[in-house]
Amino acid sequence: MEHFSDRLAASVIDRRSLVCVGLDPALERMPPALLEKHRPSATVDEDEAVAACFAEFCAGVIEAVAPAAACVKPQAAFFEQYGAAGWRALTETVACAHAHGLPVILDVKRGDIASTGAAYRRAAFGGAPGFAAPVAGAGADAVTVNPYLGDDALAPFVDACAEGRGVFVLVRTSNPGAAMLQELEVEGRPLYLHVADVVARLGAAHVGARGYSDVGAVVGATAPAALRAVRAALPRAFLLVPGVGAQGGGTDTLGELKVGDAGGLVVNASRSIIYAWQQGQSDFQRAAAEGAEALRRELGPPA
Amino acid sequence: MEHFSDRLAASVIDRRSLVCVGLDPALERMPPALLEKHRPSATVDEDEAVAACFAEFCAGVIEAVAPAAACVKPQAAFFEQYGAAGWRALTETVACAHAHGLPVILDVKRGDIASTGAAYRRAAFGGAPGFAAPVAGAGADAVTVNPYLGDDALAPFVDACAEGRGVFVLVRTSNPGAAMLQELEVEGRPLYLHVADVVARLGAAHVGARGYSDVGAVVGATAPAALRAVRAALPRAFLLVPGVGAQGGGTDTLGELKVGDAGGLVVNASRSIIYAWQQGQSDFQRAAAEGAEALRRELGPPA
Repeated sequence: MEHFSDRLAASVIDRRSLVCVGLDPALERMPPALLEKHRPSATVDEDEAVAACFAEFCAGVIEAVAPAAACVKPQAAFFEQYGAAGWRALTETVACAHAHGLPVILDVKRGDIASTGAAYRRAAFGGAPGFAAPVAGAGADAVTVNPYLGDDALAPFVDACAEGRGVFVLVRTSNPGAAMLQELEVEGRPLYLHVADVVARLGAAHVGARGYSDVGAVVGATAPAALRAVRAALPRAFLLVPGVGAQGGGTDTLGELKVGDAGGLVVNASRSIIYAWQQGQSDFQRAAAEGAEALRRELGPPA
Repeated sequence: MEHFSDRLAASVIDRRSLVCVGLDPALERMPPALLEKHRPSATVDEDEAVAACFAEFCAGVIEAVAPAAACVKPQAAFFEQYGAAGWRALTETVACAHAHGLPVILDVKRGDIASTGAAYRRAAFGGAPGFAAPVAGAGADAVTVNPYLGDDALAPFVDACAEGRGVFVLVRTSNPGAAMLQELEVEGRPLYLHVADVVARLGAAHVGARGYSDVGAVVGATAPAALRAVRAALPRAFLLVPGVGAQGGGTDTLGELKVGDAGGLVVNASRSIIYAWQQGQSDFQRAAAEGAEALRRELGPPA
């Protein structure tokens, strides 16, 4: 089974792109033509109408950004709020990304005790027991996971690396309140660096042919010092860097984080790309394509 | 809007029970009669068959334990691994618990940046934007949330307390690896007590008529010293205590944690109740009823 990190590295190198496009669909920001097309009716409930609108929007974004993006990151919450219909749209979105050759990082931030964690792993990657055959899950290539419960809670996801999947552990997040716990000082170092140590330990057994580990870390662009410290602690990990664009993080210091042929990092932007059409352009696909391409150029080549 | 903590306290007092029954459905542990009834067919896919089996099993458990349980706690992961069909079964399970007068704590352990956290809140509690009307979510009364991202990530859930919902923040979990991060020493105290401080601060604005806060804490029965320390830090919070039964935590020291008329804690057992039928009894409902009643007596009256 090919390593996740090798698939992601190949995508980065093929497209010369460190861009991860976040798929965060919100009804109030859907293009008017899609809203018009997907209204609820006597046979289509509200949740189904919204989910169908999201699936078409995400498919349009994926098609548009595929030449300039290394991967996509659907945010589960935005789908999940529409229940079963939303979950179906999420699964369709993952399949659509694969049809365009894009690895999918499913942003779920899960984390639970071992038996429950294994169920979350199967939700993302498939394999839940069926009567005659296992059930396919969302079909993601990698997930984001929360480390608060400890290494036994991370284990079900890390074990999936042996089957070609990847994991990005939350280390230092991009939100304003991130410092509250993550930067508490433990033995002279911030807590998040202790988490980075755990990531390094878990990832050592899962290194692909290109030298990157399948166990990566989420580190926000809004915390440049943390980014440098985490890179030093994780020289072989892919970093997933959210927080540029709408969240205000800059890209000028990201260049120094690049390691190896494929950079070893992907930089996520969601709203600033998928809703670029609201900044004056009428066509959401063209606006998203230009947004992704602009970020690709801004981040420079992987190596 | 009645406070969540008042609804939970009323349920505890009415049934003289501190029992929370965890709903963790697993196909390999379904009773044979239900497996026989819900086989996949030409018109029913694997995932739909399993989900229908889970919904009937959970409905049977809920009916059986309703006299002896104060609340139920569906574990989202076990449903989520069956995708859209699983999510529908989860929603039906929540509605079934409400039909039996049981408050529902949806165990999702979510936590994300503010805009995403708000979407997770709507997934659990409803209110996602629709074309003409908001979309109903899973319909839960309360959720479990993960504190690693900080207080701004907890805020969307805590804000829902003003609308009658509740929150249980992970403080000290029941799994073997919990100590790895949660007991790291920060300024002379374990990290989990710093999290308890956050819970106390966020919960102060959401106290019901019976004196309990709508913002509670998850503390595992497998860590008795942590339980006592968290109770001291949170004298007005409901504690959700997992880890008894299959996870090995004892109940003998839980009595000293009771505060007020309704005890201020609920003790969760999942597998030891819902799969009690596998210990020799043939009828899963009778075995679950007896298991819940036995735990109710073991925990004693709320005050």
